[in-house]
Amino acid sequence: MTKIGAVGGGQLARMMIPASIDLGIELTVFAEEEGSPASLATASVGDFRDVNQLTDFAAGLDVLTFDHEHVPTPVLLELEEAGVVVAPSAEALSLTHDKIVMRERLRDLGVPQPLWAQAVDQTQLDAAIGAVGGFPCIAKKPVGGYDGKGVRVVHEASDLDDWLSEGPVLLEEKVPFVRELALLSARRRGGEWTPWAPVETRQADGVCSEVIAPAVGLTEAQRGGASELAHAIAEGIQIVGVLAVEVFELGDGSLLVNELAMRPHNSGHVLTELSVTSQFEQHLRAVADLPLGSSGFVAPAGVMVNLFGEVSPEGKNRAWESVPEAKIHDYGKSARPGRKVGHIVIVGDDSAELLDRAEQARDAVHLPLG
Amino acid sequence: MTKIGAVGGGQLARMMIPASIDLGIELTVFAEEEGSPASLATASVGDFRDVNQLTDFAAGLDVLTFDHEHVPTPVLLELEEAGVVVAPSAEALSLTHDKIVMRERLRDLGVPQPLWAQAVDQTQLDAAIGAVGGFPCIAKKPVGGYDGKGVRVVHEASDLDDWLSEGPVLLEEKVPFVRELALLSARRRGGEWTPWAPVETRQADGVCSEVIAPAVGLTEAQRGGASELAHAIAEGIQIVGVLAVEVFELGDGSLLVNELAMRPHNSGHVLTELSVTSQFEQHLRAVADLPLGSSGFVAPAGVMVNLFGEVSPEGKNRAWESVPEAKIHDYGKSARPGRKVGHIVIVGDDSAELLDRAEQARDAVHLPLG
Repeated sequence: MTKIGAVGGGQLARMMIPASIDLGIELTVFAEEEGSPASLATASVGDFRDVNQLTDFAAGLDVLTFDHEHVPTPVLLELEEAGVVVAPSAEALSLTHDKIVMRERLRDLGVPQPLWAQAVDQTQLDAAIGAVGGFPCIAKKPVGGYDGKGVRVVHEASDLDDWLSEGPVLLEEKVPFVRELALLSARRRGGEWTPWAPVETRQADGVCSEVIAPAVGLTEAQRGGASELAHAIAEGIQIVGVLAVEVFELGDGSLLVNELAMRPHNSGHVLTELSVTSQFEQHLRAVADLPLGSSGFVAPAGVMVNLFGEVSPEGKNRAWESVPEAKIHDYGKSARPGRKVGHIVIVGDDSAELLDRAEQARDAVHLPLG
Repeated sequence: MTKIGAVGGGQLARMMIPASIDLGIELTVFAEEEGSPASLATASVGDFRDVNQLTDFAAGLDVLTFDHEHVPTPVLLELEEAGVVVAPSAEALSLTHDKIVMRERLRDLGVPQPLWAQAVDQTQLDAAIGAVGGFPCIAKKPVGGYDGKGVRVVHEASDLDDWLSEGPVLLEEKVPFVRELALLSARRRGGEWTPWAPVETRQADGVCSEVIAPAVGLTEAQRGGASELAHAIAEGIQIVGVLAVEVFELGDGSLLVNELAMRPHNSGHVLTELSVTSQFEQHLRAVADLPLGSSGFVAPAGVMVNLFGEVSPEGKNRAWESVPEAKIHDYGKSARPGRKVGHIVIVGDDSAELLDRAEQARDAVHLPLG
């Protein structure tokens, strides 16, 4: 039996557990703390920045994969040097650790992306802003940002005084996109690669709020282009596992790459119910070097809405009573304002109707107790 | 969070684990041995005939349910008297412990079933055989039979010499059925009850081999009758959890009840991929007294084929390579001739085509290594 270790005990590792059970794979988790969402499969609790702890955890496992992208590159490289099979590789994951490195790599791969430039100090700022088309533009901290944190819209140079005192800043053009899409796919070591149909992602305050699958109204040419784009990146970085490519769709139908994630991704949660093979199952297959499953859909459409703050038992009951077809995924997290604590998926025929129903279920979950 | 304990560490408890994760329910398992299929959730290993061990296991849990029907009725009654919530109840489960008691109960409920009679010794045998329509007829050991064991076709009275020396025998008419169906449903304590569409089950050597869902060609009247039949039994025995009613379909379209199972059942495995709510999830919802989920189907059809003997890594790889849409469920059991070790589900549009593909996948799993 293949033995896979997942570093990180969050909801992504949690949702790998059902897939591991069906596949007959032994999944164990290295969590940061007791009682994490993936506690059922947790074998070790410790610090993922400590190469010794990870080396101990990896002993006897066939492959190490990840719930998150926070394990430092030097730690990943040391693990690989010690003979641990790491998937995705340290080299691939390093792109997610620095957005400037990612932009450079995408440029080298010839992938369409927004205009970008970096500024390491005030003297470079004007030129960088000019290179991305002037104000307003987007500034990103190259390291450590996620879910809208470490990103801001820049209207004048002084908006970046604080950040530039801390280190380099990535500047990007403010893309006039019509919508955002996510291109999910998975790749095995030997190059076998399987994409899912593109999905539309909708953000609220910089955080994924809803996903519509498949993205409605894409032309055949757009779908082909999206597939080529995702494949070029997957092959270019030699990803092993699931790759999520977040893209902007422009008014002329063209696509620009916004971000990469090298793991199962929030935009792919809808696939658990909608696709023959969930992203969690496909990720485990890919890292375990098993044949990839079909990425076809079992129904015409699906939607996902995130749940923030709290999922109470009463809230779930209200939602199930009003929308019995709602699949509520409860991450088992304690309540905290704005915290991503679960999601709802509904599959069926028409994504607009499904979204209405999913929002009805979400409202029922979140209704204040009267 | 609701805490559910499952007695028995087999594949049914194993397949409750994914459902518990999505629902945010804490599931723990009382297994007979280490390394059982449900080992990931196993909290205790012991003897399910020992009321003290089960009482200890149940401490702190909200409800106790079952992977199998082998916990003796006196043990179940003692648990209930000690205040443990048992679902299904001891009274309901007692019907599964003695096929004669089950026939009596179904008769009292007015449910159509094959002609039946019991013989406790040779002197009653001729009358009993006459009562069920003469030879050939079916004999069943009332206690302990499953998967075709403890069942035989009787052609002459002396066929039962050995069994009658051991105790009572249940005799049943040999029903000239055209096919066998399973009626799966789930019921909560308050009476909320949700059926799935009837499925067709196909046996080989008395063991379920394939399931076609939904059963093809049932008339509206038959579906209504099947639903009424299942509801009458569910309500009559006050089941809490999943109920599987195995029925014979006769040439005139009428239905006769063959057997009952009061737990997720092999005939319902196809629902994991085909239905909005799997039988494992619905069972957990019902025993935890949560609103039941939609039992609608996400696709027009689904098929399930069982895997016997062994599921090797090479076999799975061959199957996935030739049939990437095959969902192989590996129970994590060691190989043994004839042992049920997994199953395959495929969902799509046309059940005949799906069955061809599923059989192709099964053949690939079982192909001897050359």
